[in-house]
Amino acid sequence: MPKYSFQNDYSEGAHPRILEALVSSNLTQEIGYSEDRYCLSATEKIHKALGNPDVDIHFVSGGTQANLLVMSSCMRPFESVIAVESGHICVHETGAVEATGHKVHTVKGKDGKVTTNEIQAVVDEHYFEHMVKPRVVYISQSTEVGTIYSAAELREISALCKKLGLILFMDGARLGAALSSARADLDLKETCSLVDALYIGGTKNGALIGEAIVINNPALKPDFRYCIKQRGALLAKGRLLGIQFDVLFNDNLFYDLARHANLMAERLTRGMFAQGYNFLTDSPTNQIFPILPNDVIAKLREDYLFYDWAKMDTTHTAVRLVTSWATPIETIDEFLKDLKILS
Amino acid sequence: MPKYSFQNDYSEGAHPRILEALVSSNLTQEIGYSEDRYCLSATEKIHKALGNPDVDIHFVSGGTQANLLVMSSCMRPFESVIAVESGHICVHETGAVEATGHKVHTVKGKDGKVTTNEIQAVVDEHYFEHMVKPRVVYISQSTEVGTIYSAAELREISALCKKLGLILFMDGARLGAALSSARADLDLKETCSLVDALYIGGTKNGALIGEAIVINNPALKPDFRYCIKQRGALLAKGRLLGIQFDVLFNDNLFYDLARHANLMAERLTRGMFAQGYNFLTDSPTNQIFPILPNDVIAKLREDYLFYDWAKMDTTHTAVRLVTSWATPIETIDEFLKDLKILS
Amino acid sequence: MPKYSFQNDYSEGAHPRILEALVSSNLTQEIGYSEDRYCLSATEKIHKALGNPDVDIHFVSGGTQANLLVMSSCMRPFESVIAVESGHICVHETGAVEATGHKVHTVKGKDGKVTTNEIQAVVDEHYFEHMVKPRVVYISQSTEVGTIYSAAELREISALCKKLGLILFMDGARLGAALSSARADLDLKETCSLVDALYIGGTKNGALIGEAIVINNPALKPDFRYCIKQRGALLAKGRLLGIQFDVLFNDNLFYDLARHANLMAERLTRGMFAQGYNFLTDSPTNQIFPILPNDVIAKLREDYLFYDWAKMDTTHTAVRLVTSWATPIETIDEFLKDLKILS
Amino acid sequence: MPKYSFQNDYSEGAHPRILEALVSSNLTQEIGYSEDRYCLSATEKIHKALGNPDVDIHFVSGGTQANLLVMSSCMRPFESVIAVESGHICVHETGAVEATGHKVHTVKGKDGKVTTNEIQAVVDEHYFEHMVKPRVVYISQSTEVGTIYSAAELREISALCKKLGLILFMDGARLGAALSSARADLDLKETCSLVDALYIGGTKNGALIGEAIVINNPALKPDFRYCIKQRGALLAKGRLLGIQFDVLFNDNLFYDLARHANLMAERLTRGMFAQGYNFLTDSPTNQIFPILPNDVIAKLREDYLFYDWAKMDTTHTAVRLVTSWATPIETIDEFLKDLKILS
Repeated sequence: MPKYSFQNDYSEGAHPRILEALVSSNLTQEIGYSEDRYCLSATEKIHKALGNPDVDIHFVSGGTQANLLVMSSCMRPFESVIAVESGHICVHETGAVEATGHKVHTVKGKDGKVTTNEIQAVVDEHYFEHMVKPRVVYISQSTEVGTIYSAAELREISALCKKLGLILFMDGARLGAALSSARADLDLKETCSLVDALYIGGTKNGALIGEAIVINNPALKPDFRYCIKQRGALLAKGRLLGIQFDVLFNDNLFYDLARHANLMAERLTRGMFAQGYNFLTDSPTNQIFPILPNDVIAKLREDYLFYDWAKMDTTHTAVRLVTSWATPIETIDEFLKDLKILS
Repeated sequence: MPKYSFQNDYSEGAHPRILEALVSSNLTQEIGYSEDRYCLSATEKIHKALGNPDVDIHFVSGGTQANLLVMSSCMRPFESVIAVESGHICVHETGAVEATGHKVHTVKGKDGKVTTNEIQAVVDEHYFEHMVKPRVVYISQSTEVGTIYSAAELREISALCKKLGLILFMDGARLGAALSSARADLDLKETCSLVDALYIGGTKNGALIGEAIVINNPALKPDFRYCIKQRGALLAKGRLLGIQFDVLFNDNLFYDLARHANLMAERLTRGMFAQGYNFLTDSPTNQIFPILPNDVIAKLREDYLFYDWAKMDTTHTAVRLVTSWATPIETIDEFLKDLKILS
Repeated sequence: MPKYSFQNDYSEGAHPRILEALVSSNLTQEIGYSEDRYCLSATEKIHKALGNPDVDIHFVSGGTQANLLVMSSCMRPFESVIAVESGHICVHETGAVEATGHKVHTVKGKDGKVTTNEIQAVVDEHYFEHMVKPRVVYISQSTEVGTIYSAAELREISALCKKLGLILFMDGARLGAALSSARADLDLKETCSLVDALYIGGTKNGALIGEAIVINNPALKPDFRYCIKQRGALLAKGRLLGIQFDVLFNDNLFYDLARHANLMAERLTRGMFAQGYNFLTDSPTNQIFPILPNDVIAKLREDYLFYDWAKMDTTHTAVRLVTSWATPIETIDEFLKDLKILS
Repeated sequence: MPKYSFQNDYSEGAHPRILEALVSSNLTQEIGYSEDRYCLSATEKIHKALGNPDVDIHFVSGGTQANLLVMSSCMRPFESVIAVESGHICVHETGAVEATGHKVHTVKGKDGKVTTNEIQAVVDEHYFEHMVKPRVVYISQSTEVGTIYSAAELREISALCKKLGLILFMDGARLGAALSSARADLDLKETCSLVDALYIGGTKNGALIGEAIVINNPALKPDFRYCIKQRGALLAKGRLLGIQFDVLFNDNLFYDLARHANLMAERLTRGMFAQGYNFLTDSPTNQIFPILPNDVIAKLREDYLFYDWAKMDTTHTAVRLVTSWATPIETIDEFLKDLKILS
């Protein structure tokens, strides 16, 4: 029986306030399919958080679903997606985008982020009908390696996409962590204004399930609910999603939960750094990638769960430690103490 | 503000015992993606209920998702599905099966049920490579018009499918209602033994979300989790599904909830029949289809929500009334009283 | 060894003038992928025949290919096609349209033709996101049972499609036969002006292979060559298609060949009618459907190839006889003589 | 008006013997859809050439079509393809494989060829249901850069695929050139025995159109004609394909044409080498990639057509010169003379 799992940010259930809301609303009758009062209320709150009542909001149950829905909805059959090679759609979604008929180009990226040079290069290389036609740029905020796009970076990508007629879509499975990072210089409002669509992740930030797709570009709005239904993503009891986002976007809970996760990661980072460890990436969010001797890892595994991420050399490995809204500060301190003893 | 909605069986949240289980389990850490202890426990209970530990169980969030997953998983590109024209996949799933590349043949059916003659006829009509090749027979138990397949009927269809090399798949969105019907002569165990795959509906029988896919035919088992993930149906917090089915299959709750829904529908049926109304179908489950004068319908609508189903003549319409695990007996009686006054 | 096959209109090779053109052009070097001089010349000739230099012309190798290309190119994932139940895409294309992800609604039709009432009804029945969204009306000219849409009928369908925002697509595998029919009151120019897209069939009218897709609606034009390439329909030696249409649209050959096929069918019809036979449909084109006693059919089969089409009663069957540009008048007369002896 | 095009090996029509066969067979009536006597005869000849009467042969019109047909036919939805990054399916088929729902992994390769290490690495990296499952290895013989797999290389890849349960599929668009190369140590018989399926390219070796798909693995044989029809690849006048392969596999024409193309390329290579030019790849087939100064290229372009392939430095570019069955020896000599003057 391990002391704690740092495997991911979805090991626990939901923030207690969410469960309270589920309990208190339980026996009211609501219209199905996300047309209930909770979905409407959550939509209003997100509109307010975005400073934009014109965006369309759709609640779905998971990130792979959100990704495949948005992207398959806005492409013609021969159009393609540009993504960084570590992108979730490239590695960990079992070819969900390709299953909707579309090629995904992978670029090397820098610190887990797509660069404008790479976008331009892919577009330049694809110039006639024997090749797919790049149409969507897929980015994650925060990225798979914990990094975040700065305001300058996102503005530059956004401007390039507009110039090239590309759709910019942001996977926000961990958008809360990105927005709440100590190094963040982008708020939700500007983030949204710079993309054509994004989704705000609930599952990895204190919800039981749920992602809120935000469609900013009017051209992508029509008939999106048809896509949701067709892909099996329209929940009969849509209230389940509405209630959760209604709670998350009340009193800044969404940000508070993400900030806690980030702070726990930061505390872990500082503690490990003080013990002389280095990191694979310079992550300001809730996923960190310390490099540890393999024998230390083996001993840590007796008490903690976490994933190996990358072999560094024959005796060292970068591991991934993920904190969450639910990680206790005591657990961080105990982990650091345990690590010190092992070193 | 209406007194009550008979629009569907998913207007409320979940049975309170389910919420209690969510609350009490909330802060334990579990492995993701339906490999947690609750999913394992729920699987064991379903195995027991089926009297068969060899079937594969997979939990997903909704019916359209379950349908498209099972059927797209077991067909080659040119294979097709046979379904009754009122079938959910034919009417109310936005072409989800076709979106996976497969044609659905519709047959007229009888009382909402596919007949063996129809299955044989479709197979006979499709005999060479210029035509699709029928591969799956899709049936619903109970059907969209509230009826149920008898043991004799299901055995006959099952035998024909085996003979013809067809896969028999049962949409069990309302399987609880079918199994708990006063007229049921099939239990879960035999039902499962007669099909290649089915799903046990949770959403319409007291869960917040959730359907349990049961795969009986060994040929359909390999790599099914790849399909789930690829279609965006693998929940990170799979515990949400496991906990619910773990509660539903405890102490017969699953059957008790369905029986209650059926009893409320039966009480409604008897009451309306006593007032002289006839019905579109002879439903022994929780969906009934009384034929009412249009002016009565208009007045009922001031207090109750329900859907029109079929125009009978210029002055009469069959409406659909759906009861659920949560429908109070007092509501039934009040509805009948209100109806009497209007007549 | 049968005397003659009336099975279809593609039993022979090509009209000799086409082969001559292939031979005489054989060793010139041409650019690939239908950008050669012959494709350009054929395009010009078709533009002239249509009285419209603004339509886009694309040459592909077969009808199923043309159908799936045009329809998959212009629909979003949840959109659907309306077709008559005898339509080629419904019966004899192995679910090719569904394989691109789209549902096909079948309507009964009248004389093999879709009616405006049916189109309106399908649109009316599909009104929200739980259902597919009808988008394309697929019609064939001539139809699978040899009939043709009159000018009045096609104008009415065209007007309704415009009003409802539907795309009207015409399968012209046998468009030559329709336009050349003694009863035709539509020419190619008006036909094209009434649809969003159609294809002009070469394979069944004297070419070795080849159909010319004509795109009239500007919204359907962009990037169509990407679709052609992606579906494997862009021939490296596109000249093969260009040369054939360049010959067919020279000196009215396209019409002359179709008219010959029609005349042979008419001669056959009159001869059989004179012998007392009736017909399943009143076909003014090159497919006719006489009703014959089964024993006569059996004896005819010793010398002629043709398909059974529909059982009329226990002793009579409607068969399909197809004539072509290559059917000799002597063969018609000999068939009639042989039939007379058998009766 | 250029003197000659070295752009590709499909600029001319067909070898004259093929046209003669089309002319002489033109007016016989044949059964449609590749069940005619010519297809049967061609199949027999290919069986003989392969020394194996048990393989299935299917004739289709082009390479992209052959590729997407074979691969989409043998994969479940979550399975994927491994290919070298220069592979035709990765670059020049507009995402045709992805359009059938499948991801293509690209590996760097060596000399345009996939290596066993790379195959093993992709398989090792994909080990659970969050990732696609590699299923097909796609190779081309000869490759896009003119190289060929040696017997040792192909045997090694074949053995690894068998061991890993992967399907090995060979794109033989230029298989003739590979088999007829001076450096070839594999014949058609052994080549076929080492793969699960391949196609023998006609279009680039003297046919008007046509590729012969050869299915060696019995598991891939059932119902393949359904796939052909569904993808729009079943020609009504299948005779067109049968006649061509019947001629190509008569009296070694297939090999003679390929050998001529190779000899012309070799003469070009030697001549350019003698003038001091180097080459991007060491190609023993009919595509060569000399590296030329940009100003020489510009001048050559006044008289010859060819494609740039890769920029080498600011003043040099590797171009692609393709020879064919139809390239006259005099043209090679004239080109070399012209080049000498320019240097």
